[in-house]
Amino acid sequence: MSGGATYLALSGGVGGAKLSHGLAMLLHDRLGIIVNTGDDFTHLGLRICPDLDSVTYALAGMNDTERGWGVASESWGFMDQLRRLGGEDWFLLGDRDLALHVLRSRALAAGQTLSDFTTAQATRLGLRTRLLPMADQPVATQIETANGTLAFQDWFVAQRCAPAVTGVQFAGAADAVPPPGVRAAFEDPALAGIILCPSNPFVSIAPILAIGDIAERLRTAHCPRIAVSPLIGGQAVKGPAASMAPALGMEPTALGIARHYAGLIDGLVIDSQDAGLAPQIETLGVRVRIARTLMVSDRDKTDLAQDCLEFCAALAKD
Amino acid sequence: MSGGATYLALSGGVGGAKLSHGLAMLLHDRLGIIVNTGDDFTHLGLRICPDLDSVTYALAGMNDTERGWGVASESWGFMDQLRRLGGEDWFLLGDRDLALHVLRSRALAAGQTLSDFTTAQATRLGLRTRLLPMADQPVATQIETANGTLAFQDWFVAQRCAPAVTGVQFAGAADAVPPPGVRAAFEDPALAGIILCPSNPFVSIAPILAIGDIAERLRTAHCPRIAVSPLIGGQAVKGPAASMAPALGMEPTALGIARHYAGLIDGLVIDSQDAGLAPQIETLGVRVRIARTLMVSDRDKTDLAQDCLEFCAALAKD
Repeated sequence: MSGGATYLALSGGVGGAKLSHGLAMLLHDRLGIIVNTGDDFTHLGLRICPDLDSVTYALAGMNDTERGWGVASESWGFMDQLRRLGGEDWFLLGDRDLALHVLRSRALAAGQTLSDFTTAQATRLGLRTRLLPMADQPVATQIETANGTLAFQDWFVAQRCAPAVTGVQFAGAADAVPPPGVRAAFEDPALAGIILCPSNPFVSIAPILAIGDIAERLRTAHCPRIAVSPLIGGQAVKGPAASMAPALGMEPTALGIARHYAGLIDGLVIDSQDAGLAPQIETLGVRVRIARTLMVSDRDKTDLAQDCLEFCAALAKD
Repeated sequence: MSGGATYLALSGGVGGAKLSHGLAMLLHDRLGIIVNTGDDFTHLGLRICPDLDSVTYALAGMNDTERGWGVASESWGFMDQLRRLGGEDWFLLGDRDLALHVLRSRALAAGQTLSDFTTAQATRLGLRTRLLPMADQPVATQIETANGTLAFQDWFVAQRCAPAVTGVQFAGAADAVPPPGVRAAFEDPALAGIILCPSNPFVSIAPILAIGDIAERLRTAHCPRIAVSPLIGGQAVKGPAASMAPALGMEPTALGIARHYAGLIDGLVIDSQDAGLAPQIETLGVRVRIARTLMVSDRDKTDLAQDCLEFCAALAKD
């Protein structure tokens, strides 16, 4: 990669936040991350953006690595008191985590865009990487189940993904447009690679691709486009990607991921456990790179990020 | 006092909350407390009602008795994170305390009145005493100083009462009306006494008296009306009552309190330290009862509450 090359990542929470963090540690201000906001919701009057928060906390080194979500050194006085006062306690809001929700809710109520608030907060935290919400308009991922359509957090948190998924929709996506920062990132002449993070393809990456011309921009990009499979040995590291795949027409394997993204990506990073799938994937016109995709340590994250950058460079030469 | 006699207290925070608690421990559902809401303000998008909160926490046994305000077993993760995110930290919001602010802000945004929210919350906490905000419309106490007019919390918290007071006004009071529960409490045929708690006369009791016909209802009440002096030996137990008195035309003593409330009260409870002022106070047509007015223990609170009830009973016989 050249010194001025820039990269663009598409990310959900957890797994996406880990690779985003790895990429940010290597690229700093040469990285933009388009973050899913389809999980966003208003709870107790506060606007909560779970994936943006996960990416923000990860990049700022504030994330809780043991629990796997939220802020490190978290406390739960608010939730405890909320229960005593009879408030809804199905969604856990840590005391430290609340600060970002409160500041964001006030900023949005005052008319600031989510993009501008996110940029200001990232700058305040000393982050040089651009955090780019996929849209400034509210978009709500909804899960269709045999029991009816559920708001994402209702299905994901309150009902613990139990109702079987029959479909997914993104309410508001048709009216949402990519914010200026997202458009600028795609149009950057120095853009040397686009990386779909190992996030849930149905509820983390799909909402991003549902916004305006983002899918078309990805399809027609002049730089290499790669994805990192969120599935290892047919299992998601975290979350419901594998369990929801069959009903949504996807084989829950790295090969299924390749077929799902075929036409949008030039290459797929798969875990060494899935190396045997490489020949089948390559017949789809998707090049394969085998790597260790399970990220535990920061070193794991920068190693996988380095793999992604090298893969982009290799694809660019072809 | 007869078994069915009811009482009405007018209260600010801290000192008022202590006597309110004492009265509530004796009277339970035979007590209504009209609480000052002139200190209320919107901070970080949250509606905060300091005096209502103090009275609620005191009656629910949730108040922090060492710090003197807020919730017991409080933690400060929210404030710590807020500072890291660059939020304003001049007003301390504890993690537990936030729960009430968040629930109230949501309820008010959804159109519930402050009275209805307060009643629902008190019921939820098992309180039998009626907590009655002085108004459902926002009323904002403003402090006039040589440096201009300041919002109450700006003067009280951010500027630590430093700017010398030249006047006090209650923005919005002219458009506010006593809520139905306040009117009903005054009109209760069983009302056997009205007690002005040992709260700051200028910024805790005066705002209540500025709402609609509350002052007139007090002036024309058929039951005994008493106040408890918030000044002991010329000093306020807590807060700026003594320091702001001279500029507002009041001698900062129990005698000054008596003159201030003359015409509105039949009797004044003063501390034994101030017993020497009794003859002068009685020349104003205000009867005096001497008591220990400093409240530290719960026993102190019920003792002073008992003094108030006996004083009302004695005045009723005259």
